Amino acid sequence: MSELSASKSKKPAAPKVIITCAVTGGIHTPTMSDALPYKPEDIASQAIAAAQAGAAILHLHARDPQDGRPTPDPAVFMQFLPRIKEATDAIINVTTGGGLNMTVEQRLAAPLIAKPEMCSLNMGSMNFGIYPMADRYKDWKFDWEEAYLRNTDDFIFRNTFRDIERILKMLGEEHGTRFEHECYDVGHLYNVAHFVDRGLLKPPFFVQMIFGILGGIGAELDNLLFMKRTADKLFGSDYRWSVLAAGRHQMNFATQAALLGGSVRVGLEDSLYIGRGTLAASNAEQVTKVRGIVESLGLEIATPDEARSMLGLKGAENVGF
Amino acid sequence: MSELSASKSKKPAAPKVIITCAVTGGIHTPTMSDALPYKPEDIASQAIAAAQAGAAILHLHARDPQDGRPTPDPAVFMQFLPRIKEATDAIINVTTGGGLNMTVEQRLAAPLIAKPEMCSLNMGSMNFGIYPMADRYKDWKFDWEEAYLRNTDDFIFRNTFRDIERILKMLGEEHGTRFEHECYDVGHLYNVAHFVDRGLLKPPFFVQMIFGILGGIGAELDNLLFMKRTADKLFGSDYRWSVLAAGRHQMNFATQAALLGGSVRVGLEDSLYIGRGTLAASNAEQVTKVRGIVESLGLEIATPDEARSMLGLKGAENVGF
Amino acid sequence: MSELSASKSKKPAAPKVIITCAVTGGIHTPTMSDALPYKPEDIASQAIAAAQAGAAILHLHARDPQDGRPTPDPAVFMQFLPRIKEATDAIINVTTGGGLNMTVEQRLAAPLIAKPEMCSLNMGSMNFGIYPMADRYKDWKFDWEEAYLRNTDDFIFRNTFRDIERILKMLGEEHGTRFEHECYDVGHLYNVAHFVDRGLLKPPFFVQMIFGILGGIGAELDNLLFMKRTADKLFGSDYRWSVLAAGRHQMNFATQAALLGGSVRVGLEDSLYIGRGTLAASNAEQVTKVRGIVESLGLEIATPDEARSMLGLKGAENVGF
Amino acid sequence: MSELSASKSKKPAAPKVIITCAVTGGIHTPTMSDALPYKPEDIASQAIAAAQAGAAILHLHARDPQDGRPTPDPAVFMQFLPRIKEATDAIINVTTGGGLNMTVEQRLAAPLIAKPEMCSLNMGSMNFGIYPMADRYKDWKFDWEEAYLRNTDDFIFRNTFRDIERILKMLGEEHGTRFEHECYDVGHLYNVAHFVDRGLLKPPFFVQMIFGILGGIGAELDNLLFMKRTADKLFGSDYRWSVLAAGRHQMNFATQAALLGGSVRVGLEDSLYIGRGTLAASNAEQVTKVRGIVESLGLEIATPDEARSMLGLKGAENVGF
Ligand SMILES: [Zn+2]
Ligand SMILES: [Zn+2]
Ligand SMILES: [Zn+2]
Ligand SMILES: [Zn+2]
Repeated sequence: MSELSASKSKKPAAPKVIITCAVTGGIHTPTMSDALPYKPEDIASQAIAAAQAGAAILHLHARDPQDGRPTPDPAVFMQFLPRIKEATDAIINVTTGGGLNMTVEQRLAAPLIAKPEMCSLNMGSMNFGIYPMADRYKDWKFDWEEAYLRNTDDFIFRNTFRDIERILKMLGEEHGTRFEHECYDVGHLYNVAHFVDRGLLKPPFFVQMIFGILGGIGAELDNLLFMKRTADKLFGSDYRWSVLAAGRHQMNFATQAALLGGSVRVGLEDSLYIGRGTLAASNAEQVTKVRGIVESLGLEIATPDEARSMLGLKGAENVGF
Repeated sequence: MSELSASKSKKPAAPKVIITCAVTGGIHTPTMSDALPYKPEDIASQAIAAAQAGAAILHLHARDPQDGRPTPDPAVFMQFLPRIKEATDAIINVTTGGGLNMTVEQRLAAPLIAKPEMCSLNMGSMNFGIYPMADRYKDWKFDWEEAYLRNTDDFIFRNTFRDIERILKMLGEEHGTRFEHECYDVGHLYNVAHFVDRGLLKPPFFVQMIFGILGGIGAELDNLLFMKRTADKLFGSDYRWSVLAAGRHQMNFATQAALLGGSVRVGLEDSLYIGRGTLAASNAEQVTKVRGIVESLGLEIATPDEARSMLGLKGAENVGF
Repeated sequence: MSELSASKSKKPAAPKVIITCAVTGGIHTPTMSDALPYKPEDIASQAIAAAQAGAAILHLHARDPQDGRPTPDPAVFMQFLPRIKEATDAIINVTTGGGLNMTVEQRLAAPLIAKPEMCSLNMGSMNFGIYPMADRYKDWKFDWEEAYLRNTDDFIFRNTFRDIERILKMLGEEHGTRFEHECYDVGHLYNVAHFVDRGLLKPPFFVQMIFGILGGIGAELDNLLFMKRTADKLFGSDYRWSVLAAGRHQMNFATQAALLGGSVRVGLEDSLYIGRGTLAASNAEQVTKVRGIVESLGLEIATPDEARSMLGLKGAENVGF
Repeated sequence: MSELSASKSKKPAAPKVIITCAVTGGIHTPTMSDALPYKPEDIASQAIAAAQAGAAILHLHARDPQDGRPTPDPAVFMQFLPRIKEATDAIINVTTGGGLNMTVEQRLAAPLIAKPEMCSLNMGSMNFGIYPMADRYKDWKFDWEEAYLRNTDDFIFRNTFRDIERILKMLGEEHGTRFEHECYDVGHLYNVAHFVDRGLLKPPFFVQMIFGILGGIGAELDNLLFMKRTADKLFGSDYRWSVLAAGRHQMNFATQAALLGGSVRVGLEDSLYIGRGTLAASNAEQVTKVRGIVESLGLEIATPDEARSMLGLKGAENVGF
């Protein structure tokens, strides 16, 4: 068997893999895992440990310090953002999605104060159904949890074209924040292209492809390849991309993304597990695991500064905290 | 060159092609084409002509007889539904999507009275952006048109899981109506699968795949093949499928669907054109054109009764008008 | 429904469709259809009629005037090539594949004398099994036919890298002939890329993708899209492409190619039929049919001179007959 | 982010991964790596170590003990086959492909004596070009090496339909040997289907998909997915599959196969490397590496007896050595 590929074209070296860690999110609830951080000090310490394990980007939501309920309160964000910034050089990425019960105004409150290097930005409106999870638990740590989950059968995650335009202008144009463009389906990629056509988005974009949320595209590897192919067609070499998949698909999808030259996102926002039926002890444990897989494929992970350069970020010295 | 395919499996004869005609919809406005019917008598006469040209299913919206604005008013529907039923044996399919400014209650008013054999049912919430069309026209026939289009940059076409469940129960279970499951993206197919898993949907489903709406999956033929492949994986042989594409893609996508064994939808709801830059004179003209293409490929179109049998419909004698 | 595609990129007008007609080939035998021409005057008259019907390229093999057996004899070629050249301005494309029983030297004899604008060139060695056809016939017009078919279970269509290199040099470099690069599988596309890498092939290439021969890729539309996608990846905008499929798949594959912006090949070499179970009366009948389909899709066919320009040919005045 | 996939279908546990190790092959030459075994004792010891590292199947060629030239001599095979059988319970798989200079008769000599549980069987004829490797070396250990490589520009790897039929009958029907059906392109999968249609192949088949040989399909991950999809369409659940890719693609393709539920082949026949630019010290080193990747994905490797059961083999007690 020849060591020569029939395809002779000299490929450039594979790009470095940017590991994003989504530390707590707004979806899972405290009942589901003791490891899910919700107190500011726990969010901070898990974020810092994730950065030490190899995460170049930390994607952050805030939660009520008393009961873990997602909160848009900038004051809560400010209890952990500076602490994380001080302890690591990781890129801090603040959600604009928030939790399932917030208006767009609420979702923007903290980002407008924090003016971070990066914010998540969901690229379309969609049903976002996490109600099937409610049936798995009987005893809840906090009152709000069950209804929060069950009501998602009537929940629309709102991100109209006008909302997106506003966020691009208010955060992007005014504060130099760049975005993790979360795409839950093929149409969301076309929405990105629409804003490129309108001149509101400039390369390099960072597209986060998301699989396995009820309401979005399912968690089949074939879907990942199709999203990637569509993005290649729409954006050519103007974009960077990363993948996350919900729950048990997390590591397989990260591996697939790395094989194809993409970056990866892990963290307890996306999955509470470290293996089949085993809860992860921390965010850092997931980062360490995905880093091991990435490196066993002969790839290197990006440092925060390498990620800054790949994504065209403004730098940690230019944020509002 | 051999006349033998290497793939010897005996294929069954290709299924007959069901032509749906979507007569007026709730998207295009009177300014855009004089052929777009909005008076009840025009909707009726164009629908009847479309059936005579070969449409087995007539998909119908109502519009205000004075200014063409989409209306949910059952009284208006009742000015054309009985007339069409009397003149043709085509299957009558009433929208549950309505126009862009209606609540779900309004959208359901006419279907609950008409109890038709078939209703459209959109399988997810999404941005639905038709505002770019507004820039193409300067002089508007009616006052409402421009704002109607432009405001879609902040419009969400609402179809939550709870909404869909209600429609399946109120129309499907109670009145035996079956559905044209409109899928604007890959995730909508997964939503169909979700309702199958929950036991709320029984085969044969009729899946309408829709391409080229801003907010949904784009109009690339490759996307059609991927939607089809995904549906095959999710539904096996439990479903029938049809395709529509917006605007200039209409005939190409219909041809592609027919080549792959699917059915087709045409009509002025979906495109106002009959060829590059030429407005269609009527719905029937589009039906005639697509029928010609289908037949030139050696395929046959389905009669209304053949379509009833393929889709498991209750029959025209069991409707409420 | 909007007439606006979500994908705003202005597409250039679709390229004109080049119809190639493969008049007689070396595979079908006289028993199979009375319409299959083998006398020089019949090959000439059918070729001329095909050109009049819209074929821009005529792909030609010779057959023994007595019994229809494929022959490499340049003298036989010279009985019809000048006649066709005189009567039409179509591009004349001479096979280098010949029949199943010829050496590469024999296959090259006529092309080296005719020095045509274009020759076919098969891009790899492969099994080429047409033996299953033998079971369909009992009474044979000529003695040679049955064994000719049956022995293909042990036949390799030989086109080594060295053979291809020789043909590229002897016909291409020396006589300015360009090629219809026949690709029966994905690897053949990679072989084309290999010769591009070696500097032996210059754009624009004309790639003929072939489906449904036992030994090559099967006749599934999905395969056509994959071949196209692979070619796009390997060649970018450096190539033109066309499709032929064996037997009953002929018209469907031609339609699919046209939908995707490609060209088409028909003719009795590839299929003896005009519809399900109906033998074609002539090559021209197939050309007329495919032309009708192409035009119903809003596309235009290329004249011979337009095809010359698209493919970079040397012109009819520079051939050896 | 939900841990629930939108796609609810309960997947069965992923099948165990069968690691095949191809110990020496007939392609690489002694100059290329000191680790490439060609003396019977080295072939035996490397094979045994590979089995101990986790290979369930050992795919074996013989080489001239003096100069490493591929040899079909059964006497040479018999110097290592019994030794390996005695030391391990791995499945022994003997090549029917041999080296590039052997007739089909020569290729069958050893398998007909050894009557192993498994033989490789190439599913079509093709160009097999390893001549580009010759340019990388200046000083050759043995005289035969350079010409052996360079002459492959005129080499056809012969496997006609008649050859394959003979092998299926002489080894399969007569001796109960089952096959590793080596498929270098999409058409080879259709050839497998052809023999299934003719009743000469019974499930479960073991399909080895091969990427990156000049003459076959290239080493792009997208090609792997397409081969897999095609095989699913042709064979449904009747087959098991494995992947190998030439040279630097080896580990990436193995990882991709494992992610998709397939098995993997490694070994010095397929690649001489263990990482970018680093020669592997032994076959076992590659087995250990791929095993680590497989296990980090949460998958288990199959023991030889589990592989026997998955592939329907006759058992080590029924071989001829
Ligand atoms: Zn988030
Ligand atoms: Zn409608
Ligand atoms: Zn030919
Ligand atoms: Zn081998």
